[in-house]
Amino acid sequence: QVNGERLWSSLMEMARIGGTEKGGCNRQALTDKDKQGRALFIRWCEEIGCTLRVDEMGNLFLRKAGRDNSLPPVLTGSHLDTQPTGGKFDGVYGVLAGLEVLRTLHDANIETLHPLEVAVWTNEEGARFSPAMVGSGVWSGEFSLDYGWSRKDKSGVSIKEELERHGYLGATPCAPFNIKAALELHIEQGPILEAIEKPIGVVQGVQGMRWYDLVITGQPVHAGPTPMEQRRDPMKAIAKIVSELYHLAEETGPLARATFGDINASPGSRNTVPEQVTLTVDLRHPDQQVLDNMDAAFRRIAQDICNQCKVEHSIVDEWNSPAVAFNASCIDAVRFAAEQAGLPYEEMFSGAGHDSVYVSKVAPTSMIFIPCENGISHNEAENATPEDITAGCQVLLGAMVQLANA
Amino acid sequence: QVNGERLWSSLMEMARIGGTEKGGCNRQALTDKDKQGRALFIRWCEEIGCTLRVDEMGNLFLRKAGRDNSLPPVLTGSHLDTQPTGGKFDGVYGVLAGLEVLRTLHDANIETLHPLEVAVWTNEEGARFSPAMVGSGVWSGEFSLDYGWSRKDKSGVSIKEELERHGYLGATPCAPFNIKAALELHIEQGPILEAIEKPIGVVQGVQGMRWYDLVITGQPVHAGPTPMEQRRDPMKAIAKIVSELYHLAEETGPLARATFGDINASPGSRNTVPEQVTLTVDLRHPDQQVLDNMDAAFRRIAQDICNQCKVEHSIVDEWNSPAVAFNASCIDAVRFAAEQAGLPYEEMFSGAGHDSVYVSKVAPTSMIFIPCENGISHNEAENATPEDITAGCQVLLGAMVQLANA
Ligand SMILES: NC(=O)NCCC(=O)O
Ligand SMILES: NC(=O)NCCC(=O)O
Repeated sequence: QVNGERLWSSLMEMARIGGTEKGGCNRQALTDKDKQGRALFIRWCEEIGCTLRVDEMGNLFLRKAGRDNSLPPVLTGSHLDTQPTGGKFDGVYGVLAGLEVLRTLHDANIETLHPLEVAVWTNEEGARFSPAMVGSGVWSGEFSLDYGWSRKDKSGVSIKEELERHGYLGATPCAPFNIKAALELHIEQGPILEAIEKPIGVVQGVQGMRWYDLVITGQPVHAGPTPMEQRRDPMKAIAKIVSELYHLAEETGPLARATFGDINASPGSRNTVPEQVTLTVDLRHPDQQVLDNMDAAFRRIAQDICNQCKVEHSIVDEWNSPAVAFNASCIDAVRFAAEQAGLPYEEMFSGAGHDSVYVSKVAPTSMIFIPCENGISHNEAENATPEDITAGCQVLLGAMVQLANA
Repeated sequence: QVNGERLWSSLMEMARIGGTEKGGCNRQALTDKDKQGRALFIRWCEEIGCTLRVDEMGNLFLRKAGRDNSLPPVLTGSHLDTQPTGGKFDGVYGVLAGLEVLRTLHDANIETLHPLEVAVWTNEEGARFSPAMVGSGVWSGEFSLDYGWSRKDKSGVSIKEELERHGYLGATPCAPFNIKAALELHIEQGPILEAIEKPIGVVQGVQGMRWYDLVITGQPVHAGPTPMEQRRDPMKAIAKIVSELYHLAEETGPLARATFGDINASPGSRNTVPEQVTLTVDLRHPDQQVLDNMDAAFRRIAQDICNQCKVEHSIVDEWNSPAVAFNASCIDAVRFAAEQAGLPYEEMFSGAGHDSVYVSKVAPTSMIFIPCENGISHNEAENATPEDITAGCQVLLGAMVQLANA
């Protein structure tokens, strides 16, 4: 039995690092706050005798020895970085629940056959550095180390510079090692489990996701004397494209998603038609074929509208994460652990990307979800109940022990 | 006869201060470059014996004595500040043509009855500090001195701080003084004069202009798991509003203008629906009644669409500059000077705001326009021919001398 109160109080203590006025968390990847959070987590792990490895991308691996340490570990983990206006649970819950599993076994003096490891992946959110899941992406071989190191934030600072500044550019090669099984526990970040009142989601896979920068270039002219019909205005085109993509998502069906999280106009002067507008576009669908169709429709829509508006455009492919199906034995282990704990569960897909997407490329992987309040995440109001937090951790413990003793 | 070559070479020398790679100019108000530009202009004026006054808003007045210095001066001038990606002529031409008039009279040893003054108004563009024409606005009494001093740029620096830093917070009260007549020479910044192949515009007045910040607040949620119909997305509303306002401008007729020069999303994270999007809106029409109708329509459109999209909004009134009619005698003086010089002219309205809008509140005022290439302004490619530059200055000389000797 995990200690739900200890887990909750660790979550609240971690949330104070980067805590915001509205009760959320701003602990973006590789900031000073992220460094503080990592240090606290490492201290907690070392207190129960775990050993630390830091790899070249600053991914952390905290290991609790097993009875046979020549065997591959059972891995769990997630991320400690947050959105700029993020919550207290996204990612952090998976990391600290992993710690709670180790603490529980440590207190009960239980050693599993296989060693256990908790991973903290660098820059999962993709908020400070694009794309998301960079630490696990490089580790799995999906991205090169140079690509990972060279990701820059909006002010031009690179991941490598920040890793060096914080002393987190580790000696361990950032490359996959042999893993028995990998599990990740996370809040759902959507409304399904709450609506059907079930505490556990048995996650089958993750939907496909694509990120783009849409860059539209027109002609800067004066807001006053320039007749509307002589303008080549990127804002006119952007407005039409956003509305069309909303329409596309709606007509594609209830599973399609289109999000425009950031936009910038240059030179950004009130009385000048912008020369250039850059819009971030995030398209998703669980069915890879449908997502491919959305991608094609997006390119067609952008082309047509930019032609109409006599502006130039380019679409920069920032990220392409195809739909993923998780490993059947890992899914079975989660289902079995939920049944053992007497917890109702739902088989479901993930709408959010997770480090498990990349981990699943090189190791048998699956995920566990718990409900979150009103399905809200990437929001300072993000919340979950202590009961669900405890339930999810109990399922994680059950599944990990089962996999580590098999 | 003015010296067109001297004027052109002064324009080119000034353009090197803040000169950009694309041949334009970035000499925004009260930056270090603006200070350099002001210093160069003051040196040129003092070389021909002019005296300087600097007022509390950093407006500069360079005076060439007349035969009776107890009489009110005839004033000309404009501004030396530019857009971030501005050109070599907008504003600067009016200031340096004023200087060329003084140089011509100085060389010919001519003293007018009334003294002559060239004004450099602070922050005309409204690009670094909103609104536009702040220096002339405070001077005319349209804005209070505190309002003017407290305008802040995007990084939070105020006009007063910059005036102090550069030593341009002058001792002269920023308040209107007795003026015989005021003229401003400017490039048209629009396509009319070029299209009809006339070198001179006799400007009757300036169209009405309104600036707003439209602030839309929704709910930040995760781009992946959150169904489209559960979102309250400011970007969806902004896109519809921009398209509707384009439609409004088009159906209002060929004289209406709607411009969206800047936009910002917060928190500005790719995989989070924005909590807030702020859009700058610039609406214009020469007929004040029609502009009032556009204002009302804008408020209705924003309200309706925000209701539909279930987002909150507020409209911040940044600036309201009603349509202005210039002084008949000043207009006559310009027309007469054009005829005297044998230059074809067109009676017209200004689509851009100018310091003359505020100067006209307290002194008889009018303006002179010359064509600019392709009607393009607020653009690094802004251009005008040396012939038109000379012709405009010749008309300014004629009109000023006529008014200063009457
Ligand atoms: N879990 C999570 O918020 N991941 C960020 C990557 C994504 O955008 O889905
Ligand atoms: N002349 C000029 O560009 N003035 C700026 C004020 C405006 O936006 O019209």
